[in-house]
Amino acid sequence: MNIAVAQSGGPTCAINASLVGVFKQAVKTPQIDAVFGSLNGIEGIINDQLIDLKLVIKTNEDMELLRQTPSTVLGSCRYKLPDVEEGGETYERILNCLEKHRIEAFFYIGGNDSMDTVAKLSDYLAARNSKIRVIGIPKTIDNDLPVTDHTPGFGSAAKYVAATVQEIIRDSSVYSIESVTIVEIMGRHAGWLTASTCVLRANDEIAPHLIYLPENNFTAEKFLEDIRNQMAKHKAVIIAVSEGVKLKGEENKPRVVDNFGHEYLSGIGKTLEQLVKENIGCKVRSIELNVMQRCSSHICSKTDIDEAEEIGSAGVKAALAGKTGKMMIFKRISDVPYVVTVDSVDAHDAANKEKFFPAQWLSEDGNDVKPEAVRYFLPLIQGEVKIAMKNGMPVHFKL
Amino acid sequence: MNIAVAQSGGPTCAINASLVGVFKQAVKTPQIDAVFGSLNGIEGIINDQLIDLKLVIKTNEDMELLRQTPSTVLGSCRYKLPDVEEGGETYERILNCLEKHRIEAFFYIGGNDSMDTVAKLSDYLAARNSKIRVIGIPKTIDNDLPVTDHTPGFGSAAKYVAATVQEIIRDSSVYSIESVTIVEIMGRHAGWLTASTCVLRANDEIAPHLIYLPENNFTAEKFLEDIRNQMAKHKAVIIAVSEGVKLKGEENKPRVVDNFGHEYLSGIGKTLEQLVKENIGCKVRSIELNVMQRCSSHICSKTDIDEAEEIGSAGVKAALAGKTGKMMIFKRISDVPYVVTVDSVDAHDAANKEKFFPAQWLSEDGNDVKPEAVRYFLPLIQGEVKIAMKNGMPVHFKL
Repeated sequence: MNIAVAQSGGPTCAINASLVGVFKQAVKTPQIDAVFGSLNGIEGIINDQLIDLKLVIKTNEDMELLRQTPSTVLGSCRYKLPDVEEGGETYERILNCLEKHRIEAFFYIGGNDSMDTVAKLSDYLAARNSKIRVIGIPKTIDNDLPVTDHTPGFGSAAKYVAATVQEIIRDSSVYSIESVTIVEIMGRHAGWLTASTCVLRANDEIAPHLIYLPENNFTAEKFLEDIRNQMAKHKAVIIAVSEGVKLKGEENKPRVVDNFGHEYLSGIGKTLEQLVKENIGCKVRSIELNVMQRCSSHICSKTDIDEAEEIGSAGVKAALAGKTGKMMIFKRISDVPYVVTVDSVDAHDAANKEKFFPAQWLSEDGNDVKPEAVRYFLPLIQGEVKIAMKNGMPVHFKL
Repeated sequence: MNIAVAQSGGPTCAINASLVGVFKQAVKTPQIDAVFGSLNGIEGIINDQLIDLKLVIKTNEDMELLRQTPSTVLGSCRYKLPDVEEGGETYERILNCLEKHRIEAFFYIGGNDSMDTVAKLSDYLAARNSKIRVIGIPKTIDNDLPVTDHTPGFGSAAKYVAATVQEIIRDSSVYSIESVTIVEIMGRHAGWLTASTCVLRANDEIAPHLIYLPENNFTAEKFLEDIRNQMAKHKAVIIAVSEGVKLKGEENKPRVVDNFGHEYLSGIGKTLEQLVKENIGCKVRSIELNVMQRCSSHICSKTDIDEAEEIGSAGVKAALAGKTGKMMIFKRISDVPYVVTVDSVDAHDAANKEKFFPAQWLSEDGNDVKPEAVRYFLPLIQGEVKIAMKNGMPVHFKL
């Protein structure tokens, strides 16, 4: 039998590690022959654009480099499969491609939109009595996939954000004048990544002094009051804010909308900077961590990269055991020592759904998170990958 | 005798390493007793806010942590000394503080504004026949200090920028549609840091496809033409642009001005993003590397940190040899193997002056730099500092 693997959605530092996990497990499984990589997610299956991964990943060194290379080496897509009733032709093209290349298992590494593809495609194949199995491998820096304890890619993003916010704290604290620094962090609806900045407290940082998530109500009045309270205690106030936080009254501003109907937000940091400037008048700066928070492999979490590889391998084992229409998940057994196991759930339970930051971990004041959150986040950012360097720069794997 | 040291201007990853250099050399010099740290640059001398560094830097581990801590542990300032004729009182306060604490040598770690302080203060002291010596230790991520081959702090900034732009290249290249990504890099008048992205070519990256420095003329028409030419060859076009690049016709836009009369620029990335959106209409994103490029110690250059320490130590030796009113400099003996020596020059030759990116290293087309620049930049980003971690995050030294 042959298998195929594709990567979808926004880049992370760990998607290529999951690809390595799928590939490695396939190579050591005698009944698997070719391992095809589909270019640009499911689009590569629809358009029959496959590459033989054994011809491009040739050595252990290649796999090591792939593990330390951010983003998706096979390309990505934001393609949403039509409903089966309306998109017969698309499904036929997929089936033709899979059958043509004798692909008996397809692995889709992605977020909740990709799980929509896994659910639809496995339903379609099951209805046709096809034996082809479809397995979803989770990834997203947003950590917003339901059921799984956390998602591959999140830990590396959180480690970068923690290290960078700590450096921003140092940078912001040098002058003798009062200042406010606002760090805008990714997360449209779920504030996990912004909340994760609380890990700095494990290293005796007080900052960020204020943490705002989309899960909380947020008003300009309360925001300014919070800042004034913090300025009474700290010369340089550091604020972590999710991109998805909405100022009351600003909700109806026109915003760009992508193929999945997601709003594309940007600029809450700049809006809040202006608000502070006008109402408080101190030195104020907003910083957007932008795509760096999802692609900074040079400071990835070893725990995250190792787990991403492991869950990719587990996906192959699940398919060989006959499973289909499943998303692989992590179950946390304990925080200290940190123990997780890998399992699988129905992909329908993850498709198009978001997991929000738990209400019980939000502070009553709506401007911080509780210590329980530190306990949850800390294991995910542990360990460093020894990065292979050339000419003083990390080496990336390229096709 | 006692000595004092202060840090001034914008943060870098290497200022604390220069402080370590001054401190270490002082500790092993028998005739030096106390080493005072002046809080918030020269303001700490004016206001008699000194700390005894031997009471806070107690172990070798402290020094190691200080070397890996970004920004200025003693705080900084943007204070410009008045001319001697007009600011007699300020100079008297400085002299009082220095004499009160029996400080016979003062070391100022900073950029071209700090060298203005070194020049004025040493002139003032010489005119009074004071034996107190004043030595400038260069630092700036802008690399725009004259006479010296390069400045401490620059190499670490360049290493972060190279690693990050490489990751942005991976991130930007995943979709099958055409896109333009604009990375805005610090540099008001001198484009050194933006130009340094050319080092990626040593690792077989073609991008950045376009590099724009303030040293070049820049028009919207030529910019759009350059992009169209690159889009014919590359699906994802990556552009590095200095924050100081000015669109013709936009030069007179009102801008914030700081104490030194510097314009505070921001937003050329956003302006260009809008320009591409309106005129080309493809997917476009601008990314500001913001303060991260000056404080990301987690990926600092070992060469830079070692040299920053070395030039700090050399400053102490120069003062002991009776020098005053000098800025320490690097002289490059050769690129391969990389050899530099440390020397000193009159601080007046560096004060308030900027060194621009050499015209002969600019491409004729005004949108790139020549291979000679790669040869200059590469040695400065070599080597990694083994960063001490705790709970998965770098450990910072704090007072």
